[in-house]
Amino acid sequence: MHHKLQPRTKAGRRFTELAEQHAAEVAESAEEHDREGTFPVEAFEAMKASGFMAATVPEASGGLGLDSAHDLGVGLNRLARGDGSVAIAANMHLAFGIIGTRLARGAREAGDDETAAATEALLGIVGGGAIAMANATEAGTDLRHPLTEATQVEGGWAINGRKIFGTLSPVADMFFVPVRTPRDDGSYARASAFVFRGTPGQQILDNWDALGMRASGSNDVVYENCVVPDNLVTFDDDDWGIESELDLVIATAGNIGLVSSFVGIAEAARDLTVEMVRTRRKAPSGRVISERSGIQRLVAEMDILLSTARALLHTSGEAIDEVIQRPVADASVDEFHQLNKEFQATKLVANRSAIDVVDRALTVSGGAGYLTANKLSRLYRDVRAGPFMQPLSPVEVHEYIGKVALGLDPALDV
Amino acid sequence: MHHKLQPRTKAGRRFTELAEQHAAEVAESAEEHDREGTFPVEAFEAMKASGFMAATVPEASGGLGLDSAHDLGVGLNRLARGDGSVAIAANMHLAFGIIGTRLARGAREAGDDETAAATEALLGIVGGGAIAMANATEAGTDLRHPLTEATQVEGGWAINGRKIFGTLSPVADMFFVPVRTPRDDGSYARASAFVFRGTPGQQILDNWDALGMRASGSNDVVYENCVVPDNLVTFDDDDWGIESELDLVIATAGNIGLVSSFVGIAEAARDLTVEMVRTRRKAPSGRVISERSGIQRLVAEMDILLSTARALLHTSGEAIDEVIQRPVADASVDEFHQLNKEFQATKLVANRSAIDVVDRALTVSGGAGYLTANKLSRLYRDVRAGPFMQPLSPVEVHEYIGKVALGLDPALDV
Amino acid sequence: MHHKLQPRTKAGRRFTELAEQHAAEVAESAEEHDREGTFPVEAFEAMKASGFMAATVPEASGGLGLDSAHDLGVGLNRLARGDGSVAIAANMHLAFGIIGTRLARGAREAGDDETAAATEALLGIVGGGAIAMANATEAGTDLRHPLTEATQVEGGWAINGRKIFGTLSPVADMFFVPVRTPRDDGSYARASAFVFRGTPGQQILDNWDALGMRASGSNDVVYENCVVPDNLVTFDDDDWGIESELDLVIATAGNIGLVSSFVGIAEAARDLTVEMVRTRRKAPSGRVISERSGIQRLVAEMDILLSTARALLHTSGEAIDEVIQRPVADASVDEFHQLNKEFQATKLVANRSAIDVVDRALTVSGGAGYLTANKLSRLYRDVRAGPFMQPLSPVEVHEYIGKVALGLDPALDV
Amino acid sequence: MHHKLQPRTKAGRRFTELAEQHAAEVAESAEEHDREGTFPVEAFEAMKASGFMAATVPEASGGLGLDSAHDLGVGLNRLARGDGSVAIAANMHLAFGIIGTRLARGAREAGDDETAAATEALLGIVGGGAIAMANATEAGTDLRHPLTEATQVEGGWAINGRKIFGTLSPVADMFFVPVRTPRDDGSYARASAFVFRGTPGQQILDNWDALGMRASGSNDVVYENCVVPDNLVTFDDDDWGIESELDLVIATAGNIGLVSSFVGIAEAARDLTVEMVRTRRKAPSGRVISERSGIQRLVAEMDILLSTARALLHTSGEAIDEVIQRPVADASVDEFHQLNKEFQATKLVANRSAIDVVDRALTVSGGAGYLTANKLSRLYRDVRAGPFMQPLSPVEVHEYIGKVALGLDPALDV
Repeated sequence: MHHKLQPRTKAGRRFTELAEQHAAEVAESAEEHDREGTFPVEAFEAMKASGFMAATVPEASGGLGLDSAHDLGVGLNRLARGDGSVAIAANMHLAFGIIGTRLARGAREAGDDETAAATEALLGIVGGGAIAMANATEAGTDLRHPLTEATQVEGGWAINGRKIFGTLSPVADMFFVPVRTPRDDGSYARASAFVFRGTPGQQILDNWDALGMRASGSNDVVYENCVVPDNLVTFDDDDWGIESELDLVIATAGNIGLVSSFVGIAEAARDLTVEMVRTRRKAPSGRVISERSGIQRLVAEMDILLSTARALLHTSGEAIDEVIQRPVADASVDEFHQLNKEFQATKLVANRSAIDVVDRALTVSGGAGYLTANKLSRLYRDVRAGPFMQPLSPVEVHEYIGKVALGLDPALDV
Repeated sequence: MHHKLQPRTKAGRRFTELAEQHAAEVAESAEEHDREGTFPVEAFEAMKASGFMAATVPEASGGLGLDSAHDLGVGLNRLARGDGSVAIAANMHLAFGIIGTRLARGAREAGDDETAAATEALLGIVGGGAIAMANATEAGTDLRHPLTEATQVEGGWAINGRKIFGTLSPVADMFFVPVRTPRDDGSYARASAFVFRGTPGQQILDNWDALGMRASGSNDVVYENCVVPDNLVTFDDDDWGIESELDLVIATAGNIGLVSSFVGIAEAARDLTVEMVRTRRKAPSGRVISERSGIQRLVAEMDILLSTARALLHTSGEAIDEVIQRPVADASVDEFHQLNKEFQATKLVANRSAIDVVDRALTVSGGAGYLTANKLSRLYRDVRAGPFMQPLSPVEVHEYIGKVALGLDPALDV
Repeated sequence: MHHKLQPRTKAGRRFTELAEQHAAEVAESAEEHDREGTFPVEAFEAMKASGFMAATVPEASGGLGLDSAHDLGVGLNRLARGDGSVAIAANMHLAFGIIGTRLARGAREAGDDETAAATEALLGIVGGGAIAMANATEAGTDLRHPLTEATQVEGGWAINGRKIFGTLSPVADMFFVPVRTPRDDGSYARASAFVFRGTPGQQILDNWDALGMRASGSNDVVYENCVVPDNLVTFDDDDWGIESELDLVIATAGNIGLVSSFVGIAEAARDLTVEMVRTRRKAPSGRVISERSGIQRLVAEMDILLSTARALLHTSGEAIDEVIQRPVADASVDEFHQLNKEFQATKLVANRSAIDVVDRALTVSGGAGYLTANKLSRLYRDVRAGPFMQPLSPVEVHEYIGKVALGLDPALDV
Repeated sequence: MHHKLQPRTKAGRRFTELAEQHAAEVAESAEEHDREGTFPVEAFEAMKASGFMAATVPEASGGLGLDSAHDLGVGLNRLARGDGSVAIAANMHLAFGIIGTRLARGAREAGDDETAAATEALLGIVGGGAIAMANATEAGTDLRHPLTEATQVEGGWAINGRKIFGTLSPVADMFFVPVRTPRDDGSYARASAFVFRGTPGQQILDNWDALGMRASGSNDVVYENCVVPDNLVTFDDDDWGIESELDLVIATAGNIGLVSSFVGIAEAARDLTVEMVRTRRKAPSGRVISERSGIQRLVAEMDILLSTARALLHTSGEAIDEVIQRPVADASVDEFHQLNKEFQATKLVANRSAIDVVDRALTVSGGAGYLTANKLSRLYRDVRAGPFMQPLSPVEVHEYIGKVALGLDPALDV
């Protein structure tokens, strides 16, 4: 019996093993990348070489065939113990594999072989070593209402706009860029443009400088008349701004790896703390401080928080797998809202628990953890990024959960 | 996909179906038994008749063969939605089946056919309709240090002492009574006496009168020169007061049904509340109050708490099953402490979550729930009993979890 | 130095002394009135006889001249330690004195001698022994939008409607009844009718039966063609439903005594608990349980919660006094919203702290407190009433505080 | 009426005015000093020039005669809104004035004119512009058990040891250094050495590098055969390690300025946030985000937390003043423990509230606050230092409060 998250599938076990190996490697350089704000390019080279980065691509496409969101979370949880920045950057890419694989399968199930083939081709590129990422966030709007605009030009669509929080951008080869396109009536349609790195007009800045997650390369990416061919722009069927099933797959299967990563950061802080209090002695008694009731209390609180976070991740991971592994036509948007409601509870509580664990680790450290030289000070900064991951922020999540619970339209009053 | 606890085994599914039927029945009389403080004898007759009460006895002994602690919890969770008192009283008996079945299996595995046969005989009695309960709690001491004493007399052992919180006592046929027996050196050995209802010297009072769980029949039971034959007294091998593996099986597999019950009470309060706010309108606007952001917020908080509680129960239930279903010799006391540490976190958080859910339900009710005529006022009183269930109280649990986490001797500093 | 709330004025000190004497008396019968759901008429006779009930009336009108909301809270805090029901019922009446005295003073300051004289006459009646209460709450609406209607008839106004939660109604001589009166355009004006007990058409039920505060006599009062003369109906100047300065005086100065009472209940629970753990011993060690770290922790948490609640009450009480004791024309509605924002924070946190204190007291009691025979079980039920006191419920209060903080219109989105 | 902390004395009002002026100045350079980890020497020059740094010295000694701990807190609360590092560094010095003034007064009252004169001389030096600080903290022990040792040598006492967290050390002129001195029986006496800056053997490192409070100059100070004359070493009368009244004066009057500073940091974060949400608009609606219920909720939570923190500081400040301004002989150690118990509750809750406020400010910022360029990211790091301030850490404080509440010996089980 193991009181940590455990993979449920064979591919998940292999993925988790690799994650643990990479975790040990990236832990070595985590402090330096944090200090310098540099992106661990070498870690991504190693993760490509080991097959880790292709894990979520089907075996036929050169991957491990990992199709369990639960197990994606487990592996990233381990990786994050070494360096949380690396784990969340890896998720940007790995989640794509799970989502893309399901899209291809859904197309096949529906007899749409063309879409299936195109998506599989993309998965094959990833299986061959390419790195993909979503490049979605913008200032002053939410995920479903991009301000970045694509306008039809000769030879395709010209994209203009600025994306922020572009995690993984230093090494990504392919960018999924949500855009809006103007309709004749003044309204907008929502679409996704697929941009290969190096397309003229795409400028990946090197300006990520934040409180934590400093090695995640979450740069701004500027699009200025960046022209992509017609076949790389996909229009959403749904209305502007209404959540589609794909949005909800991304919100759940695409996000569980992030939450698991933040819990991994907290577990690292917990382990450091337990190790410390089991050896550190303090005057006047000279006793090992783990014998003090106040220390025992705080360690208990940390472990209770972690048990809670892990139970939620485990349970949500199972629930997500159950839905996304079914025939695609079998799941409804309503059902996905129920699933997402549960997952948003997981995300809220697990992220907060993770933050509280590291906070208590600082308390136990008695001041030592506040020093820059102490790893805990990085973990404290890193773990705070969790609640910012989109969609939904802690500002909005109660409204969403409440509305779904009450059978109301889940659209937020924004 | 179901956002409630779901059984994992075939026997568990049948058990849960029965539980849901009995829940509907007991819900009818819950308010009256609460008001009068009477024990729902008729409910236990019905649960015997349906086979529900024999569920945890092997099929060979006339039961459903339910050996999953997880699923025992699921069924009791459903039953508690009807009447929490009935659910916790039923657990006293049903947990015995799971524990006894494992004891018999362990004896067989170890080649101790005599013990196996004796235990199986007991299970057969239960399969035939008898009701068993532990009669353990005493004032002024903890579970492992009974003050009730058994002294050797002609024809067996004479028991003297007073047990409290004897849930299920109005209808129990067999009582497991932890006792101490004096050793020559002035110390004590710990033993269990098995007392059949009606044994001279056993007096089951009718004095249960509490804030909540008023239909649980948790009476005092007085033993005054109550003589039981030698073969009904079992001595523990372990030292006085040290937790044995059996103690830890009871603390986990024997308790999960209680925690699940308290979560079921909270779920009932949540459902009442959601139903109410979806129909109730309020001036000046006359809008249905579910449209108010403050109401949505509180409902979201309730559902987040319930998701948390259920995830912990589900995860702990799986972990308990994994350990107790293995060959008995395969599990160590150390491993059980790890398991119990996780379970105690589940118990603490799930019970507190359940209390907080009912508290919010009262808040949402806007005063209506504070009236005696409103079911919520009973649920508020009932759900508060959760943290009192032994072992370990919220006074002690952090010390226990902390010590296990830190690799220290888990014995409390009492 | 005293770690309890202390009066700031001479009248407050006298009032607090009397409160402590009455607290000792009412403590004697609190359990019985709770059990039977009876109103402690004898206590109100004694409080009239001692001058306690006339405390907030000016000395010239036969009172103690207590005009400090802070000190009203202090005295009721003491009284509630004996019986919370008595304290909140007394507040219904005593708050009237403070509010009425200020109204009379404001009228004098404004040169409106007629209003001043009328209000002073009323205060004189109270000084002579009459008991006054607001009779405001109704089902399905909020305080500012009464559904109870007054229609003009010969000889005055006929009132029709039903009021609930009429605390103090068994002994009140005078009732302030918020009503609506229809305007020609189909809208309503808000007014207050003043009804003397025994007016034909007023029926005071004896139907209060709740989870707690069972001795508060919070009955329904039915008005059925209850006719009051013209001069006993006062129209509000302000628009229908907009908070007036008087509403805000009531929300602050009229409510602090309630919050203080709930904190008094918590203090009683805390004191019972401390006394218990300092003497109770438990096997196996036989040590006094106050020596256990888990007990010390919980007692510390209780005292931290109480320090917080008292600090908020003290600070809010000072702030309220500062505003209400100024010349009436000197205070604006805006300023009162700022004051009320602070007070609502006090109310929210102090009530929740009080509930949490009693919850912890139950935990420390280890099951004993759950028994009906134990005083804690009553305190647990009583203290939960705090957040229901109007206006504003925990459902609404964050919206109010947030809007005032952000400089928005404080009207709720109902 | 002002919902911020307000000074109670005339000197306090002047001090608070000066603090507000200096706050505006230091706010200008706070980000740069944070980034570079440099000490704002210029700020301390300005605060000396204005008389701010001499505020707590009697007027006769050249100060403002500020003897209210409450008002010391109010002023530092304002200063911290500009730069928390400056405020906590200033407190190190300013608290000395209040404590020293009381010591001198106590000596006069007791007829010990020699001690009085010596202390007044010291206060005169401070009044003349010198900066004093305690240099007490060491690794691996608590405040009352220094490991730094003073041994008698020719010409005085040679000090050897290493102090950490030496806030204000870059500009301090005088250091109070708690030491131990060996007794013949192998035990130790506790003493304080007074070391002037520049004394040979004292080395003030420039090694402060921490998560936050980076401009506080909290360097290590190494003592290596640092010899001070006999008359600069004071022996404590009390036993080794037992808290003296002076310890408790320091723990309360010497610490309230720190807690007030951390609340000031939180207030700055709150004000930034409110300003931001009142102007920032967000797609798709384009509404000012202050109109969103989720934002209103979080702002309300921030203001509730701040009201709580301020109420505790105000109430504790009054209580401290009441005790320290009395004749010195009038206060007992027991009474100081009661006072300190209350103050420790204030410290615990106010510091945690302050942390929670800044956390919510980050949440409201929606990711913007996580960027290094945003002031909130500094405030988030700075505010976390609060709970580390000695004595008592959150690891210990419940044990202390619990023991005092229960009438037990307050010495911790360390």
